[in-house]
Amino acid sequence: MKTLSKLKIINDPIYGFITIPSKLVFDLMEHKYFQRLRRISQMGFSYIVYPGAHHTRFHHALGAMFLMQKAVQALHSKGVVISEKEEEALYIAILLHDIGHGPFSHAMENSIVQNVSHEQISLLFMEALNEKFNKQLTLAIKIFRDEHPRKFLHQLVSGQLDMDRLDYLKRDSFYTGVPEGTVNAQRLIAMLNVKNDGLVVEEKGIYSVENFLVARRLMYWQVYLHKTGIVAEQLLVRVLKRAKQLSEKGIELPASDGLRFFLNHNINIENFSEEVLDTFSKLDDYDIISAMKMWVGNKDFVLKNLSKMLLNRDLLKVKVKTKPFPIQKIKEERAKLVEKFNISEEEASYFVFTGKLENQAYSMEKDTINLLKKNGNIIDVAKASDQLNLEALSKSVVKYYLCYPKNNKDSYRG
Amino acid sequence: MKTLSKLKIINDPIYGFITIPSKLVFDLMEHKYFQRLRRISQMGFSYIVYPGAHHTRFHHALGAMFLMQKAVQALHSKGVVISEKEEEALYIAILLHDIGHGPFSHAMENSIVQNVSHEQISLLFMEALNEKFNKQLTLAIKIFRDEHPRKFLHQLVSGQLDMDRLDYLKRDSFYTGVPEGTVNAQRLIAMLNVKNDGLVVEEKGIYSVENFLVARRLMYWQVYLHKTGIVAEQLLVRVLKRAKQLSEKGIELPASDGLRFFLNHNINIENFSEEVLDTFSKLDDYDIISAMKMWVGNKDFVLKNLSKMLLNRDLLKVKVKTKPFPIQKIKEERAKLVEKFNISEEEASYFVFTGKLENQAYSMEKDTINLLKKNGNIIDVAKASDQLNLEALSKSVVKYYLCYPKNNKDSYRG
Amino acid sequence: MKTLSKLKIINDPIYGFITIPSKLVFDLMEHKYFQRLRRISQMGFSYIVYPGAHHTRFHHALGAMFLMQKAVQALHSKGVVISEKEEEALYIAILLHDIGHGPFSHAMENSIVQNVSHEQISLLFMEALNEKFNKQLTLAIKIFRDEHPRKFLHQLVSGQLDMDRLDYLKRDSFYTGVPEGTVNAQRLIAMLNVKNDGLVVEEKGIYSVENFLVARRLMYWQVYLHKTGIVAEQLLVRVLKRAKQLSEKGIELPASDGLRFFLNHNINIENFSEEVLDTFSKLDDYDIISAMKMWVGNKDFVLKNLSKMLLNRDLLKVKVKTKPFPIQKIKEERAKLVEKFNISEEEASYFVFTGKLENQAYSMEKDTINLLKKNGNIIDVAKASDQLNLEALSKSVVKYYLCYPKNNKDSYRG
Amino acid sequence: MKTLSKLKIINDPIYGFITIPSKLVFDLMEHKYFQRLRRISQMGFSYIVYPGAHHTRFHHALGAMFLMQKAVQALHSKGVVISEKEEEALYIAILLHDIGHGPFSHAMENSIVQNVSHEQISLLFMEALNEKFNKQLTLAIKIFRDEHPRKFLHQLVSGQLDMDRLDYLKRDSFYTGVPEGTVNAQRLIAMLNVKNDGLVVEEKGIYSVENFLVARRLMYWQVYLHKTGIVAEQLLVRVLKRAKQLSEKGIELPASDGLRFFLNHNINIENFSEEVLDTFSKLDDYDIISAMKMWVGNKDFVLKNLSKMLLNRDLLKVKVKTKPFPIQKIKEERAKLVEKFNISEEEASYFVFTGKLENQAYSMEKDTINLLKKNGNIIDVAKASDQLNLEALSKSVVKYYLCYPKNNKDSYRG
Repeated sequence: MKTLSKLKIINDPIYGFITIPSKLVFDLMEHKYFQRLRRISQMGFSYIVYPGAHHTRFHHALGAMFLMQKAVQALHSKGVVISEKEEEALYIAILLHDIGHGPFSHAMENSIVQNVSHEQISLLFMEALNEKFNKQLTLAIKIFRDEHPRKFLHQLVSGQLDMDRLDYLKRDSFYTGVPEGTVNAQRLIAMLNVKNDGLVVEEKGIYSVENFLVARRLMYWQVYLHKTGIVAEQLLVRVLKRAKQLSEKGIELPASDGLRFFLNHNINIENFSEEVLDTFSKLDDYDIISAMKMWVGNKDFVLKNLSKMLLNRDLLKVKVKTKPFPIQKIKEERAKLVEKFNISEEEASYFVFTGKLENQAYSMEKDTINLLKKNGNIIDVAKASDQLNLEALSKSVVKYYLCYPKNNKDSYRG
Repeated sequence: MKTLSKLKIINDPIYGFITIPSKLVFDLMEHKYFQRLRRISQMGFSYIVYPGAHHTRFHHALGAMFLMQKAVQALHSKGVVISEKEEEALYIAILLHDIGHGPFSHAMENSIVQNVSHEQISLLFMEALNEKFNKQLTLAIKIFRDEHPRKFLHQLVSGQLDMDRLDYLKRDSFYTGVPEGTVNAQRLIAMLNVKNDGLVVEEKGIYSVENFLVARRLMYWQVYLHKTGIVAEQLLVRVLKRAKQLSEKGIELPASDGLRFFLNHNINIENFSEEVLDTFSKLDDYDIISAMKMWVGNKDFVLKNLSKMLLNRDLLKVKVKTKPFPIQKIKEERAKLVEKFNISEEEASYFVFTGKLENQAYSMEKDTINLLKKNGNIIDVAKASDQLNLEALSKSVVKYYLCYPKNNKDSYRG
Repeated sequence: MKTLSKLKIINDPIYGFITIPSKLVFDLMEHKYFQRLRRISQMGFSYIVYPGAHHTRFHHALGAMFLMQKAVQALHSKGVVISEKEEEALYIAILLHDIGHGPFSHAMENSIVQNVSHEQISLLFMEALNEKFNKQLTLAIKIFRDEHPRKFLHQLVSGQLDMDRLDYLKRDSFYTGVPEGTVNAQRLIAMLNVKNDGLVVEEKGIYSVENFLVARRLMYWQVYLHKTGIVAEQLLVRVLKRAKQLSEKGIELPASDGLRFFLNHNINIENFSEEVLDTFSKLDDYDIISAMKMWVGNKDFVLKNLSKMLLNRDLLKVKVKTKPFPIQKIKEERAKLVEKFNISEEEASYFVFTGKLENQAYSMEKDTINLLKKNGNIIDVAKASDQLNLEALSKSVVKYYLCYPKNNKDSYRG
Repeated sequence: MKTLSKLKIINDPIYGFITIPSKLVFDLMEHKYFQRLRRISQMGFSYIVYPGAHHTRFHHALGAMFLMQKAVQALHSKGVVISEKEEEALYIAILLHDIGHGPFSHAMENSIVQNVSHEQISLLFMEALNEKFNKQLTLAIKIFRDEHPRKFLHQLVSGQLDMDRLDYLKRDSFYTGVPEGTVNAQRLIAMLNVKNDGLVVEEKGIYSVENFLVARRLMYWQVYLHKTGIVAEQLLVRVLKRAKQLSEKGIELPASDGLRFFLNHNINIENFSEEVLDTFSKLDDYDIISAMKMWVGNKDFVLKNLSKMLLNRDLLKVKVKTKPFPIQKIKEERAKLVEKFNISEEEASYFVFTGKLENQAYSMEKDTINLLKKNGNIIDVAKASDQLNLEALSKSVVKYYLCYPKNNKDSYRG
């Protein structure tokens, strides 16, 4: 790795200082594709519930890279060989793992584009950067795609105990002010080892792994799937869906050039060309919020009211249950709206809708977290735990929500 | 105070939980004027240096209100009488003290508007809200304007040791990751008392006050006046100045309705009507960033390049000295640009400019911090300190900066 | 409650400041019975593993009282009536709940005395103090003994979610540097309520309760039952057992007067007179360590070597398994010692021994943690959890340990 | 450095994990001379004011070694050459820098021994260990004594900005719960460099240095020189002085063998033989507290009452002033005691006495903190600071205290 001529350190409230490991990493960070992540919120609209949660994808990427540096040190100290090239590739892969996120992160994956995941777009960005940076990202891309023979390198970037998860749990619990969701990343990393090119956790780290899984579960229910945050996210998805619907009908909506492009075109993985990628690279949270600020003046009942709700935090009510809501109930609620505002049932469906929340704290099917026993054997953590019954954690928990307007307010006036 | 039917608590990474003290406070928080503060960054462009610093005016206002609750409790426990009406007025005054901030906070005060301070606009908002809320804010406004006979109430809202400063120092040091800038707000508040209707600190709190002043000084030089942050702020001021200049020439620039209004009108305190206020209430950071994202495609050399610099964090270089920079030096740098890009000298002056940084940690002239001695006497903290020489802290420190383009990059290409 | 003439605040690294709620509480704290807790380590010999863990019973008692003040505030804000007398009684009961702990806490309960629990001794102290303080502790004692009709008051002092547990988990995780063992006491307390005079947690607090139980489990296995800590504790128990055995044989051992009394007498709950209590009140960690420092020079092989091991941290080896160790293995190890040092088998048994570790994170049998559903119903938390399978946590987990000397050192030389 | 076969990590609440850098360091830590530091409180009797402050010299030594590892990394990254031998020597020197502290740290230097500083005794210990460890400590001792040509190595161990100070300020502020006394050790270390074999701080670190000096000053007045802590320390010095006086008169006092030796002999640096050192190595806080617990039953009025005061925290009153107390006042107070208890004036002087507190935050005379300017020049930090007037901090501040008995209690009864 070519090191920097001057030590660059970045302040981080969580880790203290983050050091930039190489010239190439620094140059990637300076690229506008990466700088754009400064304008993409890590937790979407969660700040509507947790006002401290305004941290960005940019910051999370730096944090995950910091943890990767610690992981490399820990593995080195145990005699695991990681070449300088592999090391730099790890830093690049983790730095760019989320670069494909669109505005407000997950909300975009099925509204702005059609069934394109952010991981796919991250890969497109990495390949574009690989061209610009003289093929120096080739190994990082291989690791990211899990095409490098040393599987543990990929697992450090993407797995059930990767540096991504360790950082986002720590960071999100920190910024939301939910301290019990924290994980002891330092200890988990100190327990890592490699066996048969696979990532393992030393046996005595079992309680830390349990704690990590339970903390993650808590963060899901208490934060990521918080019902008010869900309402906001669903409203956002529907604002964009409506905007797209209107655009398709030929109605011109005020929007930034970038956003207008995606409203006017159906982009899926097949037609995601280099030009599309460049347009995508101009999108961030600011395009969405600004558009909504213009749309509150629009004459379309749906677009106007959904935008207003989000901007003024005057959201729909929401109920959460363990069973699906009866269709009849939904129909009734919609009918009320149809009558009250003289709108179509389809329009009413933007304000009354139901959906599913799902959380699986641990998957026993794919890329399990493995413990390394003192005798050298390897065992899935879910089978090793004496009491906590981690198998229970591998069951999906499903809940259902119903969103509908508050009666006591008439925030729908024309 | 009419309490809330349900206890509302808000998570805060710094204080744990913030409780909303009354129905009226809750309703004010729900108003769109206040919700708008969610979209105004507390520290402007500082996140360009400190990537964690994305917290908002909204969050700071809640934090300052939390500290005010603690201050009321502390004073109560010492027998200081504060009526329920005064108490609620204090919470309202501190909650709304910054509501007049425009996008990116201070940068706006002399570009979007002409010599209108955010305090003046805060007052306009409070008066507008007072109308909407049945004159329930009258006492809060009196306290804010220092027209209430019990002066210490105003000092808690605005003074050299007010709840505003305590929160912003704590919060900014927390989010930037500069822990040595923190202050022990809890201890300072525990030391407060009232004497002759003036706020005082008990004598034994002197070291805490010293620490507070030195921490504030550190935060100024290390964070608020950090040279890279200054460049960003100055570029922002110049982007807007240029946009206004072009608008005045009749060139139509893409911008949100709100921003366009202020580009097209010269607003000062005299013509700041209710309609202007309502338009102002629609402005936030998103209008500015979105406008710049459109302006990177503009054909004006200055507007385009300044916008690009800010968005891609490819800033000007900056030097800081204790003496002013010679005019000759500035002229030379501008001349280089004129030649290189074939632009006018006036245009070049947007990329080469100088300015002054000033910091006074403590003022002995106005509203001093007073200690209450055991014998009942009162003394200015600057005169009580045995060693630290706080008088020295009351001298203004002035530095000068010079901004100019990097040579080694040609980020100015057409 | 008679308040203090001057506000007394005590610094605490965890909560910031602890305020003393009343004159009576202050006077109890000043009593030498309570001051003695400054010399009793909260976590016994755990500092041998976690060098930060030198906090005392004194500090824990203050912390638990602080949380009790928060609990009273939270319940008040929900309309639960707690009279001033009950409030002060709560503070006294929690302050004194551990006053009966002997040196090194739990190690004493079956060595210094015979089957007397620290709770029983706490009660004896409370009764003695009740005499000295004009019967002002009567209600506190009733609450402590669960003889007050309002059961929730007792549950706040002693139950599966009491202020004792909340503080010790928070404090022990803090001082050991095991941050993932922390609990969000503030949030759990904010979720408390009272239904039918029983303590309940509001339904939405379920994830916090789960987190609390899992954190407690982690603290048990990682800290309280850490194998090195267990060795130290077992050595301590055996040092005292040996000292008692020698005393019974008429061998005079150097020791403080207090310790000598308990070595020379068999004290159980029947003969625990007022005089015995006063002697007990003179015992603390210093008596034990000082005695061991003298005993390293004793000619008894067992007493000398056990003392040396503890003082110089040159402990026995330990293995932990989920099945009992075969008797044959133990016999073999003892035989080696008998031969090597020419000691009796009984003496060898002080250096080679086995035992059981047991941990039950939650009990469904007694005083369960109950959730208050929105419909007003009450449900055991173990039955409400959707996924975590808290019932699994209510199974006891048992492990077995074997302690035996290191071969490679001869720390037994005469 | 011979590394450990197994990575040893130690939990620390402040730094997370501390790693032991080499086999030799590990073996030194295991030695009973070092293990003894587990029984010596870092802050003496300060826990009487700050109940959290029970951390030990053992823990501080580990913490300072951790910071030294960070300093070595930082200097390496700047191209400063430190050989492996020098590196290990640095770790040993900082680990053992305080090994000579007697019980309750500073209180012993002029009571147990005669004018022997703990640094001198540390050196004796290092030399004794050097014998036991095959001369492997020779370089560490040279660095400790400032006899190694590369002066900055000594400065890292002992100077105005050494790893000792950085750790104790951080640790003491953490355990006392005085967060505003903290220093950003990580940042200060990142700013270190070496110029002409002298330790320097890069110019931009000036605010961190200022903050460090002011934090240190605050810790002195608020914590180390807290008046109640001073009373306790002075009482302890006087208990031992009295005990020695009585011993000299031939009165046999109960005490541990180690303590009795020092009561019966006048040990100064001349007669501090190897045997004396070995006896000294058996002394710790437990000898002192245990002795006082026995002395509360002694018939000597002075010894008994001083011991009781300390154990039950029923201390003398204390006043602090900036001017000396008049002799007349002291005489009067003593006369009252003489009359009340029928004791000699000399005996009364143990309960009524005066003394001086002195604090100099920064010394400009010796081993100044030097800044490295961008032009390569070096300047004393006190001369570089623009505003804070660090020269003022280099003046000694002197205060005077007077201790005397409370009237309203008769804690002197026979």
